[in-house]
Amino acid sequence: MQLSLRRWRVVSLMAVMSASAVAAGAQDASVRAAVEAGNKKFSAAVTKGDAAALASLYTTDAQAFPPNSDVVKGRAAIQAMWKGVLDSGVTGAELATTEVEAQGPFASEVGTYVIKLKDGAVADRGKYVVVWKKVAGQWLLHRDIWNTSQPAPKP
Amino acid sequence: MQLSLRRWRVVSLMAVMSASAVAAGAQDASVRAAVEAGNKKFSAAVTKGDAAALASLYTTDAQAFPPNSDVVKGRAAIQAMWKGVLDSGVTGAELATTEVEAQGPFASEVGTYVIKLKDGAVADRGKYVVVWKKVAGQWLLHRDIWNTSQPAPKP
Repeated sequence: MQLSLRRWRVVSLMAVMSASAVAAGAQDASVRAAVEAGNKKFSAAVTKGDAAALASLYTTDAQAFPPNSDVVKGRAAIQAMWKGVLDSGVTGAELATTEVEAQGPFASEVGTYVIKLKDGAVADRGKYVVVWKKVAGQWLLHRDIWNTSQPAPKP
Repeated sequence: MQLSLRRWRVVSLMAVMSASAVAAGAQDASVRAAVEAGNKKFSAAVTKGDAAALASLYTTDAQAFPPNSDVVKGRAAIQAMWKGVLDSGVTGAELATTEVEAQGPFASEVGTYVIKLKDGAVADRGKYVVVWKKVAGQWLLHRDIWNTSQPAPKP
């Protein structure tokens, strides 16, 4: 009796644990779909050269962390940052999501990027972490940091 | 009566909202304290030149994203990465937390770093985003990405 009760407890505990793992997995999957949809809009805006559309994918109090720069805070500054990138000749941003871990209104995404120029040349390739935040039903980029995977230029 | 009932509902709703805002704020503050304690251990391990201690501050399935490198996955690889940094002459890492946003077992931290060499010279200064994860009651670095705020070297 003692043993079977203990076994029942273990089985119950495992059921609870796997139910919450399934729930977490289901949430991650649906958030991942929203994140990937956001990234599609992002890439489309880059191809279109539309810095305002890019900025609208961020929260109003978003922060971006470009290499070789201070922190860029808020939509207006983020729009100006992307305008600078687009003006430099960038016409493509391929984003590939590696993972999404979601918890409530926050989700962290890891992914890789390839930045291309008009002639198709690769300007940069690297990786990023984005903290997404759900605001009024919409998942938006909230914290956005990346760096290159290419070797450092020889001094 | 209609009006006062509506008013009561609004007041109740505001009370619920501010109570959950207070709860979120309180959680952020206690998690921030844990994150800052983790960063103190991190800086102490750098000063000590202890790559194993650095690795132990990460989750077992952590990922680090160093500039000019591919993704570094897992404690063993992260330990090797930090050993390389320490062997290159780094003896100081000053970390300053700018913000912590916590949600359940995840928290995203934004901060700035200063890396110093033995003679006190600044090797690099920049910013980072760390996704922390609470595992068995302990907050650990789970995703760790950074980049320099210094200007790009002239080609």
